[in-house]
Amino acid sequence: MPKTERKSVDLNCDCGEGFGPYQMGDDAAMLDIVTSANVACGFHAGDPRIMAETFHLARQKNVAIGAHPGFADLSHFGRRPLPCTTAEVEHLIAYQVGAAMGLAALSGHKITHVKPHGALSNLACADRGLADAIARAIKSIDPDLIFLVISGTELEQAGLAQNLPIAREIFADRAYAEDGQLLSRSLPGAVLHEPDIIAARIRVMVEEGAVISISGKHIPVGIDSICVHGDTPGAVAAARAVRRALEEAGISLKSFCA
Amino acid sequence: MPKTERKSVDLNCDCGEGFGPYQMGDDAAMLDIVTSANVACGFHAGDPRIMAETFHLARQKNVAIGAHPGFADLSHFGRRPLPCTTAEVEHLIAYQVGAAMGLAALSGHKITHVKPHGALSNLACADRGLADAIARAIKSIDPDLIFLVISGTELEQAGLAQNLPIAREIFADRAYAEDGQLLSRSLPGAVLHEPDIIAARIRVMVEEGAVISISGKHIPVGIDSICVHGDTPGAVAAARAVRRALEEAGISLKSFCA
Amino acid sequence: MPKTERKSVDLNCDCGEGFGPYQMGDDAAMLDIVTSANVACGFHAGDPRIMAETFHLARQKNVAIGAHPGFADLSHFGRRPLPCTTAEVEHLIAYQVGAAMGLAALSGHKITHVKPHGALSNLACADRGLADAIARAIKSIDPDLIFLVISGTELEQAGLAQNLPIAREIFADRAYAEDGQLLSRSLPGAVLHEPDIIAARIRVMVEEGAVISISGKHIPVGIDSICVHGDTPGAVAAARAVRRALEEAGISLKSFCA
Amino acid sequence: MPKTERKSVDLNCDCGEGFGPYQMGDDAAMLDIVTSANVACGFHAGDPRIMAETFHLARQKNVAIGAHPGFADLSHFGRRPLPCTTAEVEHLIAYQVGAAMGLAALSGHKITHVKPHGALSNLACADRGLADAIARAIKSIDPDLIFLVISGTELEQAGLAQNLPIAREIFADRAYAEDGQLLSRSLPGAVLHEPDIIAARIRVMVEEGAVISISGKHIPVGIDSICVHGDTPGAVAAARAVRRALEEAGISLKSFCA
Repeated sequence: MPKTERKSVDLNCDCGEGFGPYQMGDDAAMLDIVTSANVACGFHAGDPRIMAETFHLARQKNVAIGAHPGFADLSHFGRRPLPCTTAEVEHLIAYQVGAAMGLAALSGHKITHVKPHGALSNLACADRGLADAIARAIKSIDPDLIFLVISGTELEQAGLAQNLPIAREIFADRAYAEDGQLLSRSLPGAVLHEPDIIAARIRVMVEEGAVISISGKHIPVGIDSICVHGDTPGAVAAARAVRRALEEAGISLKSFCA
Repeated sequence: MPKTERKSVDLNCDCGEGFGPYQMGDDAAMLDIVTSANVACGFHAGDPRIMAETFHLARQKNVAIGAHPGFADLSHFGRRPLPCTTAEVEHLIAYQVGAAMGLAALSGHKITHVKPHGALSNLACADRGLADAIARAIKSIDPDLIFLVISGTELEQAGLAQNLPIAREIFADRAYAEDGQLLSRSLPGAVLHEPDIIAARIRVMVEEGAVISISGKHIPVGIDSICVHGDTPGAVAAARAVRRALEEAGISLKSFCA
Repeated sequence: MPKTERKSVDLNCDCGEGFGPYQMGDDAAMLDIVTSANVACGFHAGDPRIMAETFHLARQKNVAIGAHPGFADLSHFGRRPLPCTTAEVEHLIAYQVGAAMGLAALSGHKITHVKPHGALSNLACADRGLADAIARAIKSIDPDLIFLVISGTELEQAGLAQNLPIAREIFADRAYAEDGQLLSRSLPGAVLHEPDIIAARIRVMVEEGAVISISGKHIPVGIDSICVHGDTPGAVAAARAVRRALEEAGISLKSFCA
Repeated sequence: MPKTERKSVDLNCDCGEGFGPYQMGDDAAMLDIVTSANVACGFHAGDPRIMAETFHLARQKNVAIGAHPGFADLSHFGRRPLPCTTAEVEHLIAYQVGAAMGLAALSGHKITHVKPHGALSNLACADRGLADAIARAIKSIDPDLIFLVISGTELEQAGLAQNLPIAREIFADRAYAEDGQLLSRSLPGAVLHEPDIIAARIRVMVEEGAVISISGKHIPVGIDSICVHGDTPGAVAAARAVRRALEEAGISLKSFCA
């Protein structure tokens, strides 16, 4: 199969997920690796100081920034599926994206994308009403904000329906099911840990423009960005390996909004 | 003393100060009286739903809206003077003003002014460093935002130094000391309650372009807006009386950003 | 049908449901009517000051006090069904009941019962695992605490299984379905508003030891307490009418723990 | 100078200072070293789950437990001096100590001491009114609770005035001024880092029943417990060194409540 013409791809990770005195992950290390950072907005994690410092650091390191809004559920890191209406979701998104834009302005940086977090994202991936609420809120604030989504989800459909610019991501450390969607975390093998395997696999996936399912099937998907994690030392090492493998393959790393 | 040429003035009040199931004041009544609403931003009061509904109602009633940021101190309504650095204050303001802009966009309205709340405002009125932090944060977000301040305070100086458009307010239900500043709430007579007296006094103050001290001295100040309150039935009645008295004097009520 | 020998019954209501500057209901009025108060514990409503003041007032008025623990969900008043494990529920109950006991000690009063609040109660009424978690937590703290429950629910079964002393309540302003359970709030007629009707109906129910279903069927249930509400002026009037009707029928009002 | 008759001393540390997904320090390591644990109560740090797990672990490791109440200031870890009244402080202490007792009951353990945290402790060390409020709240809940204090402070005086059992602590990693009080953290040399030096110094201080000031003066003080920290790997190593040095000197480690 001939390689695609792709010459560049984005690497994104979640950042600014501490709170007050608490740290989560190694943002400084990750901002040396990725080209886009999804910054928590103070609801599931993050606070105004951490957001400001993360935006400042991202600007110094020339990393694009996005708002990463989630449920107001600090004690569970935004990972509990909470009952919510579409109106509540619109409000949550508009509040958090706006807050992120306000703080980004302080450091002379600019929010260029939005990626929903955790349970809010999971619910909206499968519920068109919630997905539409998210896309509507983003569009109300700024129709040029790039909506970072997983291909094949209701989020993608909602973004397209609102004519938002879309970027599609795959996950470096997650296995894919036969339908091209993420294998549920509850299944064995759902999370990959070996940096070299992760990196080699991502290189193929980016070159092919396809995710590789657990049976080895190549399923074509849009790939504008690769999501990597930085919450453990192993995760940081895997992210570095991904970047190196792509660079060695002649694929440059650059933000989808560059 | 000849009457000024003034033909219009703004009436402002705090709005959206409930939280979740809790109400504070009668916003619907007040938005029929005032021309500008200072909307709490979720830190000392307010939440995303209440903000959205308040912005929506303000738009319907053609009332201008401002962000009303305060300390993150819901349990004390932002009235405790908290220890804070200038960096923290910049972050607080940028986060809350941004969040308000995000939610205002949902209802097709637009934040046109900023007025700091409670203890944060009180501290900054007397501390140039904090006042500068507030003015800097506002300017970073949008240099056209109108800074609503009390004449003669460090907030006014900070706004002037940042070249922010300034609107100056007086308070309908508060007595003034001999230096033209608000009489401390801890002193007798600091808060006025009688609607007719409040209204008659405000009419004179607006016509003269001066506050009247407790000894009866007329002290010239800039008056672009009159702050009224709506947290009690008596306060709403006083606000109505103020509006009527001004209209009867031929002074039209309109927002300072109109 | 002969009247029962019952000579007394308890009247309970929720109290202390404000937060910081926010009020909810008229506690002072209700504490003149009821014989037991269920006091919010700072998670779905209430805070340490309000709890202390409510306990103090209850002691002055000779009203028995109970802890009224709920989900940590102030913004939705504990009314959203949140995903939770039995371990989380045990922790929530133990923390809040303990906190209430600590504050009750300050005012020389004593927590004598526990009644779960809102969505936590609703979930546990129908889920034996959650009900057991609640009963276990109560028993760990003090096996003499009275568990205030609705007859026929999993909460009642869980309390019996833990050998907790049980008090059973009926609701003054709610209609009952044919199975003796509360008619869902989503159905028409589920909530009664007319004080005289509420009072007359409760009198019959207490005298008969039975709830009256919407079709008029008398369904025998244990009745140790009647739950009244105080969140609106109408609710306070209904509570007063219930008390008067019972007293006129020769049924004295006294706490189930007296 | 002859050695004292002392044959045992307590080692205490703060534990359970995470929140939700966030960790702080290495509790499992510290609970193998100390004999008493001061457990955060959900206001400045900690939550019901973490409290329950910490109490459970402490019971398994036979470590005595205390409540470690602080200001409701999670975002600043209870380290900001907040304006507060004596009534508020009584409420804060009673709520948090009660909550800790409730959760300790779940794991079959028992709160035997109370040590105020951070800024609340610092303020009360120098303010007899606040110190009395703390001591009164503790006594209201259980007059047998041991009050863990620094010798020479208002907290000690308040505890004595309420006839609370008192335990006095010194700090392993802090320098002492010439008056026997802790050298301010703002001064150079205020915090010690070298495990061997810390351990050797503590051994002498315990043997002598005196703190050693920065000039080398031995100032007699009551020493029932030594406070060690566990928030960094270096701190854990220092705590281990302290324990070993004391054991080598024939001083056994055991809780002041044993």
